[in-house]
Amino acid sequence: MPVPEASVIIAAAGAGRRFAEIGGPLNGRTPEERPSKVFALLAGRPVLAHTLDCFARVPSVAEIVVALPADKVEWAKQTFSNPLTGGRRLRFVVGGSDRMESVSQALDATDRSTELVVVHDAVRPLIRREIIEQALHAAVEHGAAVVGRPVDHTVKAVAKDGRVIHTVPREGLWLAQTPQVFRREVLMQAYQHRGNLVGAVTDDAQLVEAMGQAVVMVPGDACNLKITTPEDLRICEMLLAAGWPFGA
Amino acid sequence: MPVPEASVIIAAAGAGRRFAEIGGPLNGRTPEERPSKVFALLAGRPVLAHTLDCFARVPSVAEIVVALPADKVEWAKQTFSNPLTGGRRLRFVVGGSDRMESVSQALDATDRSTELVVVHDAVRPLIRREIIEQALHAAVEHGAAVVGRPVDHTVKAVAKDGRVIHTVPREGLWLAQTPQVFRREVLMQAYQHRGNLVGAVTDDAQLVEAMGQAVVMVPGDACNLKITTPEDLRICEMLLAAGWPFGA
Repeated sequence: MPVPEASVIIAAAGAGRRFAEIGGPLNGRTPEERPSKVFALLAGRPVLAHTLDCFARVPSVAEIVVALPADKVEWAKQTFSNPLTGGRRLRFVVGGSDRMESVSQALDATDRSTELVVVHDAVRPLIRREIIEQALHAAVEHGAAVVGRPVDHTVKAVAKDGRVIHTVPREGLWLAQTPQVFRREVLMQAYQHRGNLVGAVTDDAQLVEAMGQAVVMVPGDACNLKITTPEDLRICEMLLAAGWPFGA
Repeated sequence: MPVPEASVIIAAAGAGRRFAEIGGPLNGRTPEERPSKVFALLAGRPVLAHTLDCFARVPSVAEIVVALPADKVEWAKQTFSNPLTGGRRLRFVVGGSDRMESVSQALDATDRSTELVVVHDAVRPLIRREIIEQALHAAVEHGAAVVGRPVDHTVKAVAKDGRVIHTVPREGLWLAQTPQVFRREVLMQAYQHRGNLVGAVTDDAQLVEAMGQAVVMVPGDACNLKITTPEDLRICEMLLAAGWPFGA
């Protein structure tokens, strides 16, 4: 079944303080690269280049809009060119003060003619084509789809002093990853109403849920990890060396 | 600060159906090895051998008791010898019908003279000495300590049909791993009263929590992963090749 065209938003404006503090693999990088894990080298290329590749493999992706810190936009325009994304439109926009604001800026820059909008973390460079496509299909059917994994650990509710309060029943609990895919009108409406939400919003689907709109989960895999520490970067490096995406 | 002597229980009696079904790395193994991920080869040695090594590096570990499926005990006795565990007492016992029953059997086989009891999953072969020792110290101080990681994903409560019910506030949520360390009397009392618990029990700390006894969390790391699929085994293989435990 073919899916309608999709705009992809890559959220890459995060400060990445945890990564910069830990240091290691960032030593010897240029100043432009140092503060952000998005530009750290993975198998010799910036993490962001791998992430763009993943979406360039998906035929229904019509364009990619990357939200970046203001001081990275010029550098990115020079570094990443259209051939990287299989001839798709590639745009860089300045992100906002937080993730929601950055996605909102990128959303404004997308082409209104696409029916689907994908939001993805720049620091998840190993997302398989089949998983992206399953999420696109699910969003066509249900309006919104989130890639994630069922919780397979025991979950503890823990007080600030480290004491366990109780064990949380894990049945039905999932950890959300990205991509998160939405029918365009669903995401745009969610962002228009985001001012009404109180409390911490940690992903885009939450805005959609708050409207009472259906969101479905799509099973991801363990390789779709989020690079937050140099250790995560090392695991990605090794997965690539071992042949990721493993014949797909 | 020196810690009192500890008995280590390694839970290795699980059926590992998910692993056996997926197949891959188990092909070509002997029939004894095939049904269990505990005996799958990791860098040329059974997973269990690596796990035993981790605890053999900790001076205050006085003995290790491994709970195994009945048909693996003889094979294990021939395969694993005391030199593997730095001269510590090493015992193999037949596990029970579920994890709790297996830990209970192993607990009965421990030497009553040790003050601490550690419970660890056999299929977590990459646990660093410092993390084990931090958990031992915390158990001395608080009675019970669980290695784990704060949840850094958005958590979704999901219905059986895959629809998101709501986003669960993740503040204060941790994912429990092992080792879990207990003062001996705390764990023995918890196991004596385990018949009173209703609902699914997925880790040992839960039994202790049910008694109203304090349990504290100890931060682990991302390398302490649980091998449940051939993909996990591959990641462990690569971490070892890259030099895990990285200079520690």
